[in-house]
Amino acid sequence: MVKVKFPDGTVKEFEDKTTVEDVAKSISTSLAKKAVAGRYNGELIDYNAELNEDGQIEIVTKDSKEGLQVLWQTAALVLGASLFELYPQMKFGEGTVVEHGFFFDTDNENGQVAEADFEKIAYRMQELIKSGIEVERLELDEKEALAMVDGDAYRMELVKESVVSGKVVLHKLGRFVDVSKGAYLQKISSLKVFKLLSVAGAYWKGISSNPMLQRVYGTAFYKQKDLDAELLRRQEARERDHRVIGNDLDLFFVDPEVGAGLPYWMPNGATIRRTIERYIIDKEVSRGYEHVYTPILANLNLYKQSGHWDHYREDMFPPMDMGDGELLELRPMNCPSHIQVYNHHIRSYRDLPLRIAELGMMHRYEKSGALTGLSRVREMTLNDGHTFVTPDQIESEFKRTLQLMVSVYDDFNITDYRFRLSYRDPKNTHKYFDDDEMWEKSQKMLKSAMDDLGLEYFEAEGEAAFYGPKLDVQTKTALGGEETLSTIQLDFLLPEKFDLHYVGADGQEHRPVMIHRGIVSTMERFTAYLTEMYKGAFPTWLSPKQVTIIPVKNDLHLAYCEELRDRLVANNIRVSIDERNEKMGYKIRQAQVTKIPYVLVVGDQEVTTNEVSVRRYSEKETVNMAKDKFMNEILADISSYSREK
Amino acid sequence: MVKVKFPDGTVKEFEDKTTVEDVAKSISTSLAKKAVAGRYNGELIDYNAELNEDGQIEIVTKDSKEGLQVLWQTAALVLGASLFELYPQMKFGEGTVVEHGFFFDTDNENGQVAEADFEKIAYRMQELIKSGIEVERLELDEKEALAMVDGDAYRMELVKESVVSGKVVLHKLGRFVDVSKGAYLQKISSLKVFKLLSVAGAYWKGISSNPMLQRVYGTAFYKQKDLDAELLRRQEARERDHRVIGNDLDLFFVDPEVGAGLPYWMPNGATIRRTIERYIIDKEVSRGYEHVYTPILANLNLYKQSGHWDHYREDMFPPMDMGDGELLELRPMNCPSHIQVYNHHIRSYRDLPLRIAELGMMHRYEKSGALTGLSRVREMTLNDGHTFVTPDQIESEFKRTLQLMVSVYDDFNITDYRFRLSYRDPKNTHKYFDDDEMWEKSQKMLKSAMDDLGLEYFEAEGEAAFYGPKLDVQTKTALGGEETLSTIQLDFLLPEKFDLHYVGADGQEHRPVMIHRGIVSTMERFTAYLTEMYKGAFPTWLSPKQVTIIPVKNDLHLAYCEELRDRLVANNIRVSIDERNEKMGYKIRQAQVTKIPYVLVVGDQEVTTNEVSVRRYSEKETVNMAKDKFMNEILADISSYSREK
Repeated sequence: MVKVKFPDGTVKEFEDKTTVEDVAKSISTSLAKKAVAGRYNGELIDYNAELNEDGQIEIVTKDSKEGLQVLWQTAALVLGASLFELYPQMKFGEGTVVEHGFFFDTDNENGQVAEADFEKIAYRMQELIKSGIEVERLELDEKEALAMVDGDAYRMELVKESVVSGKVVLHKLGRFVDVSKGAYLQKISSLKVFKLLSVAGAYWKGISSNPMLQRVYGTAFYKQKDLDAELLRRQEARERDHRVIGNDLDLFFVDPEVGAGLPYWMPNGATIRRTIERYIIDKEVSRGYEHVYTPILANLNLYKQSGHWDHYREDMFPPMDMGDGELLELRPMNCPSHIQVYNHHIRSYRDLPLRIAELGMMHRYEKSGALTGLSRVREMTLNDGHTFVTPDQIESEFKRTLQLMVSVYDDFNITDYRFRLSYRDPKNTHKYFDDDEMWEKSQKMLKSAMDDLGLEYFEAEGEAAFYGPKLDVQTKTALGGEETLSTIQLDFLLPEKFDLHYVGADGQEHRPVMIHRGIVSTMERFTAYLTEMYKGAFPTWLSPKQVTIIPVKNDLHLAYCEELRDRLVANNIRVSIDERNEKMGYKIRQAQVTKIPYVLVVGDQEVTTNEVSVRRYSEKETVNMAKDKFMNEILADISSYSREK
Repeated sequence: MVKVKFPDGTVKEFEDKTTVEDVAKSISTSLAKKAVAGRYNGELIDYNAELNEDGQIEIVTKDSKEGLQVLWQTAALVLGASLFELYPQMKFGEGTVVEHGFFFDTDNENGQVAEADFEKIAYRMQELIKSGIEVERLELDEKEALAMVDGDAYRMELVKESVVSGKVVLHKLGRFVDVSKGAYLQKISSLKVFKLLSVAGAYWKGISSNPMLQRVYGTAFYKQKDLDAELLRRQEARERDHRVIGNDLDLFFVDPEVGAGLPYWMPNGATIRRTIERYIIDKEVSRGYEHVYTPILANLNLYKQSGHWDHYREDMFPPMDMGDGELLELRPMNCPSHIQVYNHHIRSYRDLPLRIAELGMMHRYEKSGALTGLSRVREMTLNDGHTFVTPDQIESEFKRTLQLMVSVYDDFNITDYRFRLSYRDPKNTHKYFDDDEMWEKSQKMLKSAMDDLGLEYFEAEGEAAFYGPKLDVQTKTALGGEETLSTIQLDFLLPEKFDLHYVGADGQEHRPVMIHRGIVSTMERFTAYLTEMYKGAFPTWLSPKQVTIIPVKNDLHLAYCEELRDRLVANNIRVSIDERNEKMGYKIRQAQVTKIPYVLVVGDQEVTTNEVSVRRYSEKETVNMAKDKFMNEILADISSYSREK
C-alpha cells in the first residue's frame, strides 16, 4: 500500500501499482477526463506511471500550463517517430519542451532536415496520429535500454545518463524509442493541432567542440484557436525582435566564430548607445552622482573578499595567471571596484551620501545556448551606481533614486512596467543575511517610501537578495514575458566584508550601508529593449540618422540641399543627402524602411520659397514649411526627447 | 697580435694584452686624458680591459653620454662598497645605470636603508673616494667568482647568469665585490660630484612573487654645474609629474595589490577623461568617421590570423580557456576588430574611404617595473581609427587625417611637437613587407603631402612599421624626453592577411589599403600628458571643477550663491559652493591649490549690485562684473577651448 497526500491535505491509501489515472478516477470522472499526467513528489510523471512510494500528488489537467507541456513532450515524440521512419539513417538527441513549444535534435549525415521537408514530415505525423498507435512506457535496466536504441551513439549516451536506481524509463512509439525525460500522453490522438516552425543548428550538449545537430522546432495545442493566437504572437514578436531589427537597421552583429555573446556595435547601433550613455551620465551627474572609470580587471583576491568567487564562480571567466604569482580576473560586477573608490579616502559623515556611478564593463560567462542578440551577452556595460549612506539616509536616498528612475522612464517613454518590492522569505529567514531587526526595519522603510511617493507596487516574498531587500522594475518583453530592467538594492553585507566605515559626527567610526542601483540596465539589454519597444522606429533624439534630404534633381537642387545639411550639422543633427541616381519614390520608401524620422524633399518650389517639404516617419502627408520653422521643430523634438506635447 | 679598426676606417695591429688605455694613448695624450672607457665590437668595456680578439674600437670620453654612464656605473659601485661597510649583513642585487643616474638594489633584514641614512652613506662614499682606493677588474671562473660574494644568494645568482665562455667579470672595491654588468672607472677620484636621491621598493628580478629589495637611487656628474642643472630639472619634472598632480588633485590612483597598471579614475580625473572622449568623438564624427563599439575579447584565432599572436605575444595577456574548446583573448590592438566591421558587409568603391573609429579598450602586459601612473598601464583605451581606402585615396586621406590632427592639437593648445616621417631602412629592406614599388611610391606620397600642406618634418630611416611607412608626432615629455603621441600608419599587410576587398567601378574585386591612426593616443597617456603640460592647471573646458562660489557669510549670502549656482548648472558648468565654516582667505587659497579656474566671492556688495566678484586662477586681482557678463565670459571661455583670444 502507498500513502498519497492530496493538495487539500487529505491522505488516502492505495494499493501498490496504482497509477496516476487510478488516483484521478478515484477523485472524479470529470477530473479524470481532463487529466493528462501527474505531479508526484514534485516531479511530472506519466498518467499511466505507477506510484511505488508514499508521496504528494497533483493531477495535471489539459487546461493547465503543465498540461500543455505534456502535449508538447508527446508532440516531440511523434515528431521523432515520424523522422525515424522518413530518415532511416537518422540519429537522435533529445526531444524536449521549451518555452512555447518543443524541439527534437537530429543528425542525418546523408542530408539534414530542412524547412522544405516540413510538409512531408507533418503529413507523416498526422498519419501516425490517425493510426491509433499509443505511447508505450518502458522501465528497463541499463543493458536492455541500450539494446533498444538502434546503436545510436547519442541516445546511448542519454541512456547512460538516465539510469536511476538501476532503471531507465523509455517511451516507445511504433518502432521509435525515445530517451528524453518528461511526461507523455498515452493516446497521441489528443495531438490534433500542431505546427513545425523552424530548424536551427545546435551543438550536441551545447558544447561547441561537439558535432552540430539539427534542432527541429514546433508547437502544439489542444485547440486550433490557441495555435492561431500563438502564431500571431510569434509573428508580432518577430516584428519586434531586436535581432531582426538589429540586422535590418544595421545596428549590431555577433559572429560566434570570433566570439559568441560578444556583439559588434555598427555605427547605427553605436550612435544609439552613445546617445543613451551621454544622456544617463548627464542625468546622474546633475543629480549628484560622481562618475568614475574603474578597471575591469583585478586580482582574484578582490572577488574572494567580496564573496563573488565563492558564490558566483560559475558565471565568472577563468582567472588569468600572469606568471608572477598574480591571478587577474575579469570582473563579473562593479561593486568591489566602487568599494575601492570609497576606500581610497577616509570618509566622513559629511561626505555621505556618496554616489559613485560608472558605465562599468563586466564579463559573465553565459552558456552559449542562452546567448541572445544584445539581450543576453558575455560582455556588457552596466549603468551601475553605488551609493554609500548612513543608516539614517536610506529612506531619503531610496526615494531620490526612485525619482531619478521615474524621470528616466518618462524621458524614454517607457510606461509598461510595474514596481516589485522584494522581501526575504519569512519562512526561510535563515537563508538571508542574519539581522532580523535590519530586515524588518528596512522592508518597512521601502514600503513606506513607496507609499509616500504614491507609487503602485506589488510585494514579493522570497525575491530579496541575500544581503538585503530591494525594489525591482519589471518590464514586459516583446515575447510577452517580464524582465527586471532597473533595481535598487540595499546591501548590509559588503560593507561588513570590506570593513567599510565613515567618521560620524561623534568622531567615532560607523558602518555605512551600500545601495546598489541600476537605472537603464546594461547598454546591451537596454538597447535591445528600446529596439523592441519602438519596433526600430526610434524617437528622433535616439535615431541613428535623424534627417535625410532628397533633391528632386541633383543638378538643380543639390546646392540648396548642401546648405541645408551644413546648417543641420552645425546644430549637431545627424543628417545626410541621398544623392544617388535613383527615383525619388524609391528614396522616400528607403527612408521609411530604415525608419528615419524626417525626410526633406527639395525641388524647385522649395528652392524658390526657401522652404523645405517635410515628411515625418509613419505620416503619409508632406508639409511645407520655412527652413527656420523646421529647424526649431526638430530641435524642440530632440530636446524634449521626442515626447508627445 | 690583434687587429683594431678605428672609426675613420684605419686598422692598426697591437700586441696581445693591449688595453683600451694603450690604444687611446697610441692616438694622442689629449684623447687619453679625457678617455674613461672603450666601446669594442659594440660593447662598452673598461678602460683597462684587454683586447683579446680583432675588433672595432671607439674611445669613450668624459664629455660623451657614455662617459657619463661609466661615471654612474662607478658611482653605483662606490655606493655598494659603502653600504657593504655600513651594513655588515646587507645583501646586494644589481647596481646599474638608468636614464639620469644609477641605483643599487639592497636587502638588509635588520633594518632597510632609508633616505634618513643618506647623509651617513654619502659621507662614507666621500671617505672611500678620498682614500685613493682603485677599482680592481677580475676575470675568474665560476667557482672562484662564487667564492668571492660572501654567500650572498642574490649575487650568487647574478654570478651564475654572468658566465661567458667559462669566465665571470667582477669589479672589486675594497672588500666589496660587485657582479653588475658595465664599464667602470679605475680611479674613483673622478667621482667628485654625486647625490643620493631616493629609495624605492623593487622586486628581485622585477617579479612580484620574489622578495622586495630596497633600490637606492643617485646621480653623479663630472662637474658641479651639471649636477645643479639635473637637480633643477628633477624639481621641475616633479612639479609636472602627473602622478604627483594626480594625487594632489585626486585625479586617479593605482593600487598594485588590486592590480598593477590598472588605474582607478576618481571623479575629477573621470571628468577630464569624459570631456576628452566626447570632444574627440564629436570631432571625428563631424569629419566623417563612423564610431563603433567592438568587443575587447575574441577567439585567439583572430590574433593568429592577424599575426599578433606570432609577433606580439609577449605583450599579450594569457588566453582564457572557456572549457568548451574556445580560447578567448583580451585584445592587444583594435585593428582586427575593425576589420570585422569592414568585413561585415560587401564593400564597394563608393563606400570608401570608410573611416571606422572607436575608443577601444586594449590590454597589454607591461612588466611591472615599467608601469608608470597613467602613462604606462596594462589596461588602456585608445582613440583608435582605421580608414579603408583605395590606393588612389591614400594621399588625400593622409592629408585629411593630418588636418584633423593639427586642428585637435590647436584645440588642446599643444605646440611643442614635431612631425617625423618614418621610412623603412634602405639598407635592410628585407626586414619589411616585400613590395619595393609600394614602399617607394608611398614614402614619396607622404613626403609630398607634408610639403603640400607646408608642414615641417624630419625624416627617419628605419623607423617605419613592418607593414608600411608612417608619420609620427613626437611630443616632449615633462622629463625632457620625447614620445609619440599621434601616428598615421599605412598598412598593406593586414588587408592581405584578412583577404579584404572592395568591388571597384570595374565590377572586379580589389584590395583596399588600411590607414591606422591615433590622434590623442590613449585616454590614459593623453590625460597624463595634458596634466604635465598644464601642470594640473587645466583650461576651463577640461577642468574637473570650473567654478567655486564663496559666500562671505553663509547666513547673509548663501541664497544668492545658490541662485547663481543653479544658473551655472543649467548651463552645464561644473560648480560648487564652498559653504564650510572656514575663513574666506583659506577658501580662496584652497581653490588656488586645487587650480579651479574661477573663484566667485559673494558679499554684501555683490548681492546689492547683482554682480559677482571674479578671481581667475593664477591672477592676483579680483574683477567685479554683472552676472550676465560673467556667464557670457565663461561660456565663451569653454566653447573656445580656453584658447587665448
